[in-house]
Amino acid sequence: MSEGSKGNQKIEVCFNPASFQVYKNTEAVVVIIDILRATSAICTAFEYGVNSIIPVAKVEEAMLYKQKGYLVGAERNGEQLDGFDFGNSPYSYMTEKIKGKDIVLTTTNGTQAIEAAKDSDTIVVGSFLNFSALIEFLIQNKKPVLLLCSGWKERFNMEDAFFAGAVVNELSKYNDFDTMGDSAIASKYLYLSGHQNPYRILHSSSHKARLVRLGLKEDVKYCLQLNKTTIIPVYKGDRLIAMNKK
Amino acid sequence: MSEGSKGNQKIEVCFNPASFQVYKNTEAVVVIIDILRATSAICTAFEYGVNSIIPVAKVEEAMLYKQKGYLVGAERNGEQLDGFDFGNSPYSYMTEKIKGKDIVLTTTNGTQAIEAAKDSDTIVVGSFLNFSALIEFLIQNKKPVLLLCSGWKERFNMEDAFFAGAVVNELSKYNDFDTMGDSAIASKYLYLSGHQNPYRILHSSSHKARLVRLGLKEDVKYCLQLNKTTIIPVYKGDRLIAMNKK
Repeated sequence: MSEGSKGNQKIEVCFNPASFQVYKNTEAVVVIIDILRATSAICTAFEYGVNSIIPVAKVEEAMLYKQKGYLVGAERNGEQLDGFDFGNSPYSYMTEKIKGKDIVLTTTNGTQAIEAAKDSDTIVVGSFLNFSALIEFLIQNKKPVLLLCSGWKERFNMEDAFFAGAVVNELSKYNDFDTMGDSAIASKYLYLSGHQNPYRILHSSSHKARLVRLGLKEDVKYCLQLNKTTIIPVYKGDRLIAMNKK
Repeated sequence: MSEGSKGNQKIEVCFNPASFQVYKNTEAVVVIIDILRATSAICTAFEYGVNSIIPVAKVEEAMLYKQKGYLVGAERNGEQLDGFDFGNSPYSYMTEKIKGKDIVLTTTNGTQAIEAAKDSDTIVVGSFLNFSALIEFLIQNKKPVLLLCSGWKERFNMEDAFFAGAVVNELSKYNDFDTMGDSAIASKYLYLSGHQNPYRILHSSSHKARLVRLGLKEDVKYCLQLNKTTIIPVYKGDRLIAMNKK
């Protein structure tokens, strides 16, 4: 439906954090999306019992936390930075040592998206790994939805837009969500073009190619799995916590 | 193909002028796209014999030209501004009075896109109305292609991305154009989803709805027609001229 329709809840998709101010809506739930791999890694860490994750935009801030004794994840350009405990791979968070801990994370794109959105009322983290729980929350919450793709260095990226399209497609089955911006409609078309074989539509994406070059094909496979957790990470104060427990 | 492939000529799509600096490539031919309606109107004006079009970003600049005696088009939010000669409708340029004249144009989005790109080596104007001529030029020119969508007030819009997808789809039939950014791939999927019935895919777009509310349905129909002209407007100095004559 167009912006002129009678839907109660608007769905918008912002394709990169640099455009966030244009799409900003103080009433909306902002969903942070960085499928390969920050938001997939964050969802995994909560499934493995982390108490909270403090996202920071800069490596220098992450280093200060490291010096204070925190466990810290730091990734740039797909690779874990030297001197830190984790990178951006969900597999690196599948460990007992994060259980009950407050950890710190900085990534190329995902934590930048959180930074861009941080003054919003409600910010949650989305990935295929917590897809159904996220959808259920967005439906129950009855607020407009702003899907914020992390992209790649301020560019559009395929996997985040594809995921946004999956969310739009699912929400658009409910009457309350029938007012969509153009980017939401386009994302839905993108998802419908590729949902029967996500590997095919992502085959040509630049970031998937980058990860495969880095030997991270298994990470890509993992991040495209549905519903490995029911936890929705939510940003409160300066950190992400689990909105709901397992 | 991914950015890792062996294509000689890269195709990129930038979804709004605010992101142009991220996609900027000094070697590329920049194609300005504002299907509803600035670039369609510009192509129409050249088909009707205008000598040149001076695009200006601000209404105040347009007014100064008006005071000097120029014929001036000025549109904001879909409507012609009072005191000017034309708006943004291709139909308003189908007139003998522009023949051989240098005219001035300012629009909500299209002329802003030209402004963003104006330091680029080669800037041309694209629309469905000059589609085949544009494709032929891009193939002959053998340079990378950057398709710059005007969008709507710094947002993604459907019709410009759909047109970009049509160009990507056509160029990707040639081996020389096989390196695409993610936004180019997504645009191609969007085009392939809707090309058999463009009205359907554009049905829900916010700007089409806006134009229909303004009684401009005929404009929308006109702007979706293929190959009404063979002229490619090109930006030289401070103005658009016809690269080729009829």
